[in-house]
Amino acid sequence: MNITNHQYRLVQRPMGLPKRSDWNYTQETLRDPGDGEVAVQVLYLSLDPAMRGWMNEGKSYIPPVGIDEVMRAVGVGRVIESKNPALAVGDMVSGAFGVQEYAVVRAGEVTKIDTRIAPLTAFLGTLGMAGMTAYFGLLDIGKPEAGQTVVVSGAAGAVGMVVGQLAKIRGCRVVGIAGGADKCRYLTEELGFDGAVDYKNEDVKKGLRQHCPKGIDIYFDNVGGDILDDALTQIRRGARIVICGAISQYNNTTPVKGPSNYLSLLVNRASMTGMVVFDYADRFAQAVAEMAGLMASGKLKSREDVVEGIETFPETLLKLFKGENTGKLVLKVAD
Amino acid sequence: MNITNHQYRLVQRPMGLPKRSDWNYTQETLRDPGDGEVAVQVLYLSLDPAMRGWMNEGKSYIPPVGIDEVMRAVGVGRVIESKNPALAVGDMVSGAFGVQEYAVVRAGEVTKIDTRIAPLTAFLGTLGMAGMTAYFGLLDIGKPEAGQTVVVSGAAGAVGMVVGQLAKIRGCRVVGIAGGADKCRYLTEELGFDGAVDYKNEDVKKGLRQHCPKGIDIYFDNVGGDILDDALTQIRRGARIVICGAISQYNNTTPVKGPSNYLSLLVNRASMTGMVVFDYADRFAQAVAEMAGLMASGKLKSREDVVEGIETFPETLLKLFKGENTGKLVLKVAD
Repeated sequence: MNITNHQYRLVQRPMGLPKRSDWNYTQETLRDPGDGEVAVQVLYLSLDPAMRGWMNEGKSYIPPVGIDEVMRAVGVGRVIESKNPALAVGDMVSGAFGVQEYAVVRAGEVTKIDTRIAPLTAFLGTLGMAGMTAYFGLLDIGKPEAGQTVVVSGAAGAVGMVVGQLAKIRGCRVVGIAGGADKCRYLTEELGFDGAVDYKNEDVKKGLRQHCPKGIDIYFDNVGGDILDDALTQIRRGARIVICGAISQYNNTTPVKGPSNYLSLLVNRASMTGMVVFDYADRFAQAVAEMAGLMASGKLKSREDVVEGIETFPETLLKLFKGENTGKLVLKVAD
Repeated sequence: MNITNHQYRLVQRPMGLPKRSDWNYTQETLRDPGDGEVAVQVLYLSLDPAMRGWMNEGKSYIPPVGIDEVMRAVGVGRVIESKNPALAVGDMVSGAFGVQEYAVVRAGEVTKIDTRIAPLTAFLGTLGMAGMTAYFGLLDIGKPEAGQTVVVSGAAGAVGMVVGQLAKIRGCRVVGIAGGADKCRYLTEELGFDGAVDYKNEDVKKGLRQHCPKGIDIYFDNVGGDILDDALTQIRRGARIVICGAISQYNNTTPVKGPSNYLSLLVNRASMTGMVVFDYADRFAQAVAEMAGLMASGKLKSREDVVEGIETFPETLLKLFKGENTGKLVLKVAD
């Protein structure tokens, strides 16, 4: 092989919103795969709010991206050379390839994907980490029961849209919180949510009161900040709050805003529980099969917001923090 | 009967720390008990941080004390007249008598107590609501296992001292957070805690790191505020935080300080759960029997801080918020 590879490498840890100069766009010749390895051409990359956390120094559920390392990202791609009998040239695979055009990885670090069951990009969204996060966060931590009220923030995002639809399938009343009339219309008209609150143009507390007359049994939180505080005022006795993320706080240059209304947990005998999707890895295959079935039967809709060109990575990532994407944000690297 | 009764009635809702002028000290003639009722002479009253919350307007786990109503308080006393066959003159009973010298109540609203199994005041502390809170909060929500590390704040208070001792009995490493060297010495030398952190004179985060080298499995929180935030930085994977109270925040005139470090719940797949002791009422008798047995065998120590004179009520209550009591704060009303 004589392949030129481009990649984004972290050069400094961002303060606040990441900017182009926090990475270097570098070029190098792709090395040949060694024994047991494969070379993959990256086709699509998943852009996720969690990536912002990976850029910070400090202990977390995963080590930070090191300075000068290729920016971490999950992607899907095509095997172009294989030194491992488990994978053949042409196989489609997903893995943590990083923000680059090509990656050489051990075969055990990738998952072969079957594009007959769903389109390629779905494996980055509803059948990828976002969908798995929604599935296990809602079902294992939220424990929804038919008739209960489920509220999800970041509802028109990759995780939120799946949470809401899975809750509907389980017979819950579902209310989404999203920014802007278009997203809210998408939730109620396309995805069948029972209600939507437009946090950019409505009083969230009032909206929740209106759409959740009995209060909230499960609040699936992707955003933190004031919206978490508003939801806390409307929870029912025994409510479960799933802490999946806090996108409103990831670019803070001041301390994170803790939920002032957390004593509502006491009054309502409620719980707030954090989750990390990797803990459920041994059940991913089963969940993917179930969700692919739901997608095939039209019960679970998936939407991707695809932006083309790896070179746009720094600006495209910001769409997440500006709330500009509807559905799963994906960066198209090659055809 | 021709008995003069004195009581504290709420006249206004306090701003910040309650002051004497928030109540009226009133006098009236005790009414005769009607059919099914008993008249009780109050001997001791339990003073609890929760009383501050009962003075506030607004929805909570219990309605607020109304303006002009007798201030709510749990007490123990002696039946002095009975119109109910279930209770005889001379019986000792506990109940929500209010801050007054005498109360006329329905027999079903009081619990007969057996002073052969423990001293009278223990029924307001370790065998009362404080002890029940510790018992069910630690065991049902915290779910301690031998070898795990349990940290409790307000550790020298009525709830905290029981939490720590029960956790020791279950084979846990126990660290208490309390204010001042005397209280800390009491925890380690008298109650057998493995360590104590003096939040008034030490860096709490550093102290926790030192005394909990493996991190915290269970944090039983009575105080909220900065100490909750410090504890959040030291929790282990799968930790349980029991939200029992937040005494540091009850007299705020500004919004409650939410835990800025709550995203540690996510990183550590941990939970934070609120509890209200009344939910466990059907298991109180069994817990009282178990705890009385532990007290009798010397395995569970109880301490009361007894202040004499109902007229001192407004100032005595403040001892809780100034951290001046060690053990259960009790107001002695009569012999």
